[in-house]
Amino acid sequence: MSDAKPPKKEKDPGHAAHARAAADVKRWSREADVVIVGFGGAGACAALEARAAGAEVLVLERAWAGGGTSMQASGQLYMGGGTPLQKACGFDDDPDEMFKYLVASCGPGADEEKLRLYCDRSVEHYHWVTGQGVPFKQSFLPVEVGTDPYTDDGLSYTGSELAWPFCEIAKPAPRGHTAQQVGENAGQLMLEILLRRAQESGAQIVTDALCEPLVVERDGRVVGVIAKIGGEEHAIRARGGVVLCAGGYIHNKDMVSRYAPRTRRVRFRLGCDGDDGRGIRMGMGAGGDAIRMEAACVVVPFSRNRGFIRGVLINAHGQRFCNEDLYQSLLGEIGLWREQGRIWLALDDAVYEKPQLPTEIAAVGETWEEVEREAKCFPPGSLSRTLAHYNEHTARGVDPQFRKEARWLKPLTTPPFVLLDLTLEKYPFWSAFTLGGLHTRPTGEVLDADGAVVPGLYAAGRNASGLPAHGYNSGLSLADATWSGRLAGTAAAKARR
Amino acid sequence: MSDAKPPKKEKDPGHAAHARAAADVKRWSREADVVIVGFGGAGACAALEARAAGAEVLVLERAWAGGGTSMQASGQLYMGGGTPLQKACGFDDDPDEMFKYLVASCGPGADEEKLRLYCDRSVEHYHWVTGQGVPFKQSFLPVEVGTDPYTDDGLSYTGSELAWPFCEIAKPAPRGHTAQQVGENAGQLMLEILLRRAQESGAQIVTDALCEPLVVERDGRVVGVIAKIGGEEHAIRARGGVVLCAGGYIHNKDMVSRYAPRTRRVRFRLGCDGDDGRGIRMGMGAGGDAIRMEAACVVVPFSRNRGFIRGVLINAHGQRFCNEDLYQSLLGEIGLWREQGRIWLALDDAVYEKPQLPTEIAAVGETWEEVEREAKCFPPGSLSRTLAHYNEHTARGVDPQFRKEARWLKPLTTPPFVLLDLTLEKYPFWSAFTLGGLHTRPTGEVLDADGAVVPGLYAAGRNASGLPAHGYNSGLSLADATWSGRLAGTAAAKARR
Repeated sequence: MSDAKPPKKEKDPGHAAHARAAADVKRWSREADVVIVGFGGAGACAALEARAAGAEVLVLERAWAGGGTSMQASGQLYMGGGTPLQKACGFDDDPDEMFKYLVASCGPGADEEKLRLYCDRSVEHYHWVTGQGVPFKQSFLPVEVGTDPYTDDGLSYTGSELAWPFCEIAKPAPRGHTAQQVGENAGQLMLEILLRRAQESGAQIVTDALCEPLVVERDGRVVGVIAKIGGEEHAIRARGGVVLCAGGYIHNKDMVSRYAPRTRRVRFRLGCDGDDGRGIRMGMGAGGDAIRMEAACVVVPFSRNRGFIRGVLINAHGQRFCNEDLYQSLLGEIGLWREQGRIWLALDDAVYEKPQLPTEIAAVGETWEEVEREAKCFPPGSLSRTLAHYNEHTARGVDPQFRKEARWLKPLTTPPFVLLDLTLEKYPFWSAFTLGGLHTRPTGEVLDADGAVVPGLYAAGRNASGLPAHGYNSGLSLADATWSGRLAGTAAAKARR
Repeated sequence: MSDAKPPKKEKDPGHAAHARAAADVKRWSREADVVIVGFGGAGACAALEARAAGAEVLVLERAWAGGGTSMQASGQLYMGGGTPLQKACGFDDDPDEMFKYLVASCGPGADEEKLRLYCDRSVEHYHWVTGQGVPFKQSFLPVEVGTDPYTDDGLSYTGSELAWPFCEIAKPAPRGHTAQQVGENAGQLMLEILLRRAQESGAQIVTDALCEPLVVERDGRVVGVIAKIGGEEHAIRARGGVVLCAGGYIHNKDMVSRYAPRTRRVRFRLGCDGDDGRGIRMGMGAGGDAIRMEAACVVVPFSRNRGFIRGVLINAHGQRFCNEDLYQSLLGEIGLWREQGRIWLALDDAVYEKPQLPTEIAAVGETWEEVEREAKCFPPGSLSRTLAHYNEHTARGVDPQFRKEARWLKPLTTPPFVLLDLTLEKYPFWSAFTLGGLHTRPTGEVLDADGAVVPGLYAAGRNASGLPAHGYNSGLSLADATWSGRLAGTAAAKARR
């Protein structure tokens, strides 16, 4: 056994988990009240709020420029409870309905304390974000963002609010607030604004600064961080606290294998190169507890063709397994966790059009029996029985089994019939990013495995387990990054001694 | 936000996650080569092997006597690959088939390195265990242990080896080796033997010794542990290493809520009072990485009445969702993770008998339509359609949908029909224990979040993520405890300086 080897690494994610004893630091290169690791959405907002609270702020960014994964995002912020944009578009919303929806869709085990606070203060957050200069066009896009020709509209549905069972749990309202930019790169616009504001605020930004372990006093207090800047190791002291804002870990294959083996099977990994879990590992090395590490946002974007929602999703047993009008991130989670990535979409000629994302056709036929025979992957009789049952009910305008919204119900009775292959093996557009991270209070204070605060340490964005604890809705990444960054920056600034 | 409170604790699990700096230890009360935390199955075997390697051994047990959760177990060891008991009962097995089965049933993401080693050395482990004096009657019990009148037979199936799809993945063999004792308390017999042998080996056993944090040098090496003995705090030095063998965390509600929110819903928690995750938290506080913390063995023991396997399991959509002859721990996992604990069992009069575990009857009727109407919990027509389909095929002796073994197939056509309520809310016999723990090499060396060894620290049994990484078969707890305890004890003894 003595020759047991650690698992092979496909890309070295570096060493960050072994905290440095403060007694081993010979000289502090520089210091600040608040030291922020990572200059993406969370880091920029942490810097802005720490500066607003009067703290001296130093931001360390490993890349040559800030932005991180937030910069690649589609620029949606999940906000609600009656924002000016919701009102301008004629939608009623209130924090309680938003809270009920998020508890139901961000679980199991959503952090209700974090969600409650965010829902109650979401309108204030809207004002803060627009106050930084982020523009939102006062218009509503009546389809999901990402499914139709690009527009610069401000408000849209970015979750399963209208779908069963959520529509019975909470009064639906659109809560995706997208920065005004034509196309899917509104994240870049939003980040450029936030990064510029952070720079203007007087925060010191150091790029090409790769953080290594945290520096910890004998009593466990985090007092700084080791960083490699220009090839040299620097010890940087934090008088108030270190705020970890260094992103998720989808690009660290070892971590994904260890914590989220299901997600390991998803080929397309969403995030910038820096998402190797370094910030999370730094926090763990200083005693921070990482939680919900199995959680991931998994997306299966079959509904880019909106009309495909009229089709029927089928599992390996030839059964339906959910209402097809659930949002693509929830479908991905169900498809991966419940059906192990083995799902297909049944369509008829009246619904079929060229898919916006190319996919393999598993089978075509003049009858569902023929499709089933050609597909060769279902128990005999199962697909045709499922379709017969579906058609029988949808002809009457109802879906008693999964309650898909009436507007999407249509019997699939126009031959030829087609079965699209959406399995993980054949449909390469499944995508994922991780949701797990350090256990924090809403303030961003990092907790250890006993639930006690690790003094001097804060985490935000994907370095923490945040608003989407397990389930996901689009817009929650930027919402979480900006909101939790703000709170952590404020808390760390207050803690300066 | 400054008044944010940590979550309420229903029972104080104590503080263990904040490691003590060695420089803060004024005096070592005592020392040993190998210090073992916990005297259950893993601790006893670690002690035996460390002693066999010539080390001075000190075991610290929080209770007034050893045994832990292993003592409450039903005394099965999952072993195979051609043990003398398997051979005596006429079963062929080989390590490769055992490996294939365990990889498939202990995933997703089973630790193949650990499984490979265990399968290759399982016969040797059998000899070691019997060499300690644990008796196995050389006889085969042709039903699952726990489902029938108690016997003292040695060998039985304790997993889904015979069920689809596993029967196609690996050649089935029974691998549950139960210590010879009439009834379900063979764990007590096995533990009494192992504890006595550990005591006779010259290991020092201190009971009523509650361990608190580990003691860590500035460079991260674990050099001892703080323990409360007789109300006084003692610092105990470990020259070779500390081996954590202190059990799982099913009785720590905060930890279960944080890491395994699904499991939180299971009412009956399997484990001794000490299963509050203390050992895992101690390890995390010293930089150890805890993995697969969402994993749990979840059991729904509906098949105590073996004939009930002839029934049909139904989900909330009125569908079948698996073959009913899967082992009870896999059914529990599927029932909880896939069906959110909302499952029912449909039986007819020819199959029905008084259930061995009392359960609520959801509905009775002369036709399945009547049962469905009375049950009021399924989409209209769904239950009756599912049963019609099942009956149609089983009348021909086949189950194309889920491939239940032919011996369990029987049309449910004899009225009256009955539906038993097995939902989490109504069936109180769902039970669970946690499987997640510290990330270790097969040797028991604890790894940090970078995948590097934490020097001086070892973990075994439920303090580590072991053979059953995610899925479970009965007998793997004691197999894992005894086997990983042996390896960790050996490794820590070798490391003594």
